[in-house]
Amino acid sequence: MVTTDLNTITSPEAIRKMSIDELKHLAAEMRKALICKVSAHGGHVGPNLGMVEAVIALHYVFDTPKDKIVFDVSHQTYPHKMLTGRMNAFTDATHYDDVTGYTNPRESEYDLFSLGHTSSAISLASGLAKARDMKGGKENVVAVIGDGSLGGGVAFEGLDFGATLGTNFIVVVNDNNMSIAENHGGIYADLRMLRNTNGEGEPNLFRSFGYAYRYVHAGNDINALIEMFKSVKDTDRPVVVHINTFKGLGLKVAEDNQEKFHWSMPFDPETGELLASDSGEDYTDIFATEMLEQMKSNPQVAVITAGTPGAIGFSKDRRLHAGKQFVDVGIAEQQAVDLAAGMAAGGVRPVFGVVSTFLQRAYDQFSQDAALNRQPAVFNVVYGSMFGMNDETHLGFFDLGLLSNIPGLLVLTPTSKEEYLSMLRWAIRQTKTPVVVRQPGGRVVSNPDAALLDDYSRAEYEIVRKGGKVALIGVGTFLPVMNEAADLLEKQGVSSTVINPRNVSVLDTATLDSLKDFDMVITAEDGIIDGGYGQKIASYLGEAPVKVVNLGLPKKFLNRFDAKEVQRACSLTAEQIAARAVKTNY
Amino acid sequence: MVTTDLNTITSPEAIRKMSIDELKHLAAEMRKALICKVSAHGGHVGPNLGMVEAVIALHYVFDTPKDKIVFDVSHQTYPHKMLTGRMNAFTDATHYDDVTGYTNPRESEYDLFSLGHTSSAISLASGLAKARDMKGGKENVVAVIGDGSLGGGVAFEGLDFGATLGTNFIVVVNDNNMSIAENHGGIYADLRMLRNTNGEGEPNLFRSFGYAYRYVHAGNDINALIEMFKSVKDTDRPVVVHINTFKGLGLKVAEDNQEKFHWSMPFDPETGELLASDSGEDYTDIFATEMLEQMKSNPQVAVITAGTPGAIGFSKDRRLHAGKQFVDVGIAEQQAVDLAAGMAAGGVRPVFGVVSTFLQRAYDQFSQDAALNRQPAVFNVVYGSMFGMNDETHLGFFDLGLLSNIPGLLVLTPTSKEEYLSMLRWAIRQTKTPVVVRQPGGRVVSNPDAALLDDYSRAEYEIVRKGGKVALIGVGTFLPVMNEAADLLEKQGVSSTVINPRNVSVLDTATLDSLKDFDMVITAEDGIIDGGYGQKIASYLGEAPVKVVNLGLPKKFLNRFDAKEVQRACSLTAEQIAARAVKTNY
Repeated sequence: MVTTDLNTITSPEAIRKMSIDELKHLAAEMRKALICKVSAHGGHVGPNLGMVEAVIALHYVFDTPKDKIVFDVSHQTYPHKMLTGRMNAFTDATHYDDVTGYTNPRESEYDLFSLGHTSSAISLASGLAKARDMKGGKENVVAVIGDGSLGGGVAFEGLDFGATLGTNFIVVVNDNNMSIAENHGGIYADLRMLRNTNGEGEPNLFRSFGYAYRYVHAGNDINALIEMFKSVKDTDRPVVVHINTFKGLGLKVAEDNQEKFHWSMPFDPETGELLASDSGEDYTDIFATEMLEQMKSNPQVAVITAGTPGAIGFSKDRRLHAGKQFVDVGIAEQQAVDLAAGMAAGGVRPVFGVVSTFLQRAYDQFSQDAALNRQPAVFNVVYGSMFGMNDETHLGFFDLGLLSNIPGLLVLTPTSKEEYLSMLRWAIRQTKTPVVVRQPGGRVVSNPDAALLDDYSRAEYEIVRKGGKVALIGVGTFLPVMNEAADLLEKQGVSSTVINPRNVSVLDTATLDSLKDFDMVITAEDGIIDGGYGQKIASYLGEAPVKVVNLGLPKKFLNRFDAKEVQRACSLTAEQIAARAVKTNY
Repeated sequence: MVTTDLNTITSPEAIRKMSIDELKHLAAEMRKALICKVSAHGGHVGPNLGMVEAVIALHYVFDTPKDKIVFDVSHQTYPHKMLTGRMNAFTDATHYDDVTGYTNPRESEYDLFSLGHTSSAISLASGLAKARDMKGGKENVVAVIGDGSLGGGVAFEGLDFGATLGTNFIVVVNDNNMSIAENHGGIYADLRMLRNTNGEGEPNLFRSFGYAYRYVHAGNDINALIEMFKSVKDTDRPVVVHINTFKGLGLKVAEDNQEKFHWSMPFDPETGELLASDSGEDYTDIFATEMLEQMKSNPQVAVITAGTPGAIGFSKDRRLHAGKQFVDVGIAEQQAVDLAAGMAAGGVRPVFGVVSTFLQRAYDQFSQDAALNRQPAVFNVVYGSMFGMNDETHLGFFDLGLLSNIPGLLVLTPTSKEEYLSMLRWAIRQTKTPVVVRQPGGRVVSNPDAALLDDYSRAEYEIVRKGGKVALIGVGTFLPVMNEAADLLEKQGVSSTVINPRNVSVLDTATLDSLKDFDMVITAEDGIIDGGYGQKIASYLGEAPVKVVNLGLPKKFLNRFDAKEVQRACSLTAEQIAARAVKTNY
């Protein structure tokens, strides 16, 4: 057996000359390096370990980068990155951060799209295939999609269209029998039946969409995969290759606990224990604890997730506890919003816990089915903050503007744990309007003095402190910052008024009118300025003498940023805000 | 044969006592009334004529409103409205406008949702079913969906989830062999095969999703439909009933030209000719003519539609002319945007012509796949205006804010035919950035003096006229209005500056800086104020002494409004704008 020096592999060309035994050895070495990196560094564990052989076989058979492979969800592309010129980001700890966790065209010509929201690879690949056909090209176009991503609407739209191309179009379905948690939806019974019949059974989902169909039971057997990919290479029609892989393969703790090791912080590869323990309370846990209480006391309360139960604190134990009051629709945000709207119409109290960056996948449903139809569903938004996810594909600062400009959708922006719970409870209690409750970002803030309301549908600002001719309006996460700025101003002998707007959907015009003769109003929000809350204030006060300064994030796809640095760059620290107020006015 | 006096039918209860012969007679009478109304009044023709028998059978068998029927797309619900207390809106011309063209819960308890965007009925119904199960109810939940709507992502998500309910859930698929134009996508071959095998063949799409399956070949035979619906009533598991109906049945011109008579303005029921001829040039035609030219001269240009070729001027003839350079993905906007992004990545020049109200169904794809990935696809937005569609489900004034707040997506807002063509041509020529070109609303404006650019990516305002201390910034449709206001001001001896911002994505800060010492800046846009362009100006000028007034629409779902009235209510007429400038400043 030849020992592979992984670092000699600088492009897929290097593996195309290898024997099957050498490729197997390569897979073993890659798996070792992967385990070493993800356990020390954190990242997507199971999805990558399951795909080592398939990625090797793909690059072995297909003539990349001439042949085009679109990966979806691209968090399973660590092995792909290893084979395409970025090996040292997996073998050398000092280079671990050289690569992102998703495909990225700025990293490599082998990465065709920056793709992190899942389910869109088939559609994007269909565009590459159509372009190829228009140009008279001959290259293979391959979309690689995980079974969990298949449940997203755009994946079905892509499958439906792709079948009609009538030319070379290869969809590899990586079926590891689960997405992040268990898979949910009728198609998964069909995938299971296909696995159990070695691909022979009917009804066959993919054939019903119009594809030729191939099945590889041994989806971690390089030889079997190579033979299959060879057989479909240069096909002149759309074909689905369904491969049965084992998530977490080669790392016992990940094999035994596939959900936990879908993605992990750094951990001990032997025991699976996290190297650093979670410190302190977080809003995720507050939400889950509260909802379990509510579901227990009221059988008509339900919690919905779209394939990310962990992000809303619903571990397996808690899900079992919630029973039929917990619904995971899989990666299908449109369905989740409409399920909530339909349940609200049916008279029960649904709460869809949704990650900020993913809620935009259901904009039309928020607008048409929840808001226009005035269905009193509740949407609990997590990671809606600059102090949350920080990949360019997973940003939490676009939702504020997106949702607050939908008529009839009330977007609440709590500023502390106490206010959050008060708002969440009211949202569930009331039955008049769809309500979004956006968890604050960063560490949990406790404020026993929060001025709570028993009805949050009124446009009534909380005047947190009053004084002077400068008003500081802090939305959600930024109320504590505004308070801190006011303290700093106080020390300089400048009084200020601090305001918590409570929601970003309706202006409290009476309070705003009282600010018209102020020297300055400064707004700060945990979202982009464009289309956001501050601009509504600037517009409302446009004819008044008061100066208005809107602070927030730029309209940019920031990538792997340091939130504290961005906060400073956007003049969003308490010191900067205080200085701004003083410099301009006193 | 009993003669049915249609007006005696005030609720479905009335038909439940009828014999089959009486029901057949009722269907004939209803069809006559429908033809009479739609030919005189306009509306959706074919979809309703095809569904008369199915709707009668549904209300005959199911115990509505206790049993719940969710219609999608609800433009096929005229017969439903006739049977549920709104008959005179179809038999009495003076009451034709008493009902909207879609289901509407404010009209009737039999209408469960205001639903006009298609594809969401299965998902909404799944929520009703889940709520029923949580409450221990026993009613039937039925979703009725047209074959064309099936291709939308949320419909697949709903099918996928609904199969897992494990309780009563009935999906009626109204298969009339076409949606608005022909259907497109791999599943339609499967539907055809199922029709050809009397529902016996495999692979069966619906069974692959996990449903029991029934097929009714004679989908316009009341007796067959009643027997089938009776057989699935009170089922304890999810079932699909696939019915084969004939679009336009009973009106020869509609039977013979199903696409043209999907929806029509008033027409002669004998000849099919429109009663009023289209007057004058429109932007739809300008777009189609231009694109046919471009496709002819460049084989790498392509036009994409998501099931609405007519809305972008591509009649059957023109589609044949365009050949493979014209792609209809069906009602699947997410696929359309990603197809465009993928084609742009593949080096050709796609132009997706999309109706404003539907583009929001693909927000995530605009953001992630086109903008974040910087794919130079072109999006031509039609009916993006208050002077366009006016049903609450089909509004054209939300897209501006929605798209202009996406980083890296350049949203151009032409103000005349000449500028529109110049921008469209540039958008197709350049290969650096995704570009939205938003057709102006209302009548075509010709402006031979338009100051055209050879690069619209620069933030460079057009100063249309210069003078005085009032600036009027008119976006798209509203530039001519601003010019008119300036004329009125001129007559009163007040000079003004009129500005065409050309795009709503990037501010021309140099020009805006020159306005800081103006008396007033008035912005007017063809969209809601919240999150729109004017607010960006108000924010930018927030610290300057100049007063800023933002004009536009309120954040509301307006319904069946008169655009001229709304324009006046929003102070958006030239007279009002001129008066505003004078009153406040001089």
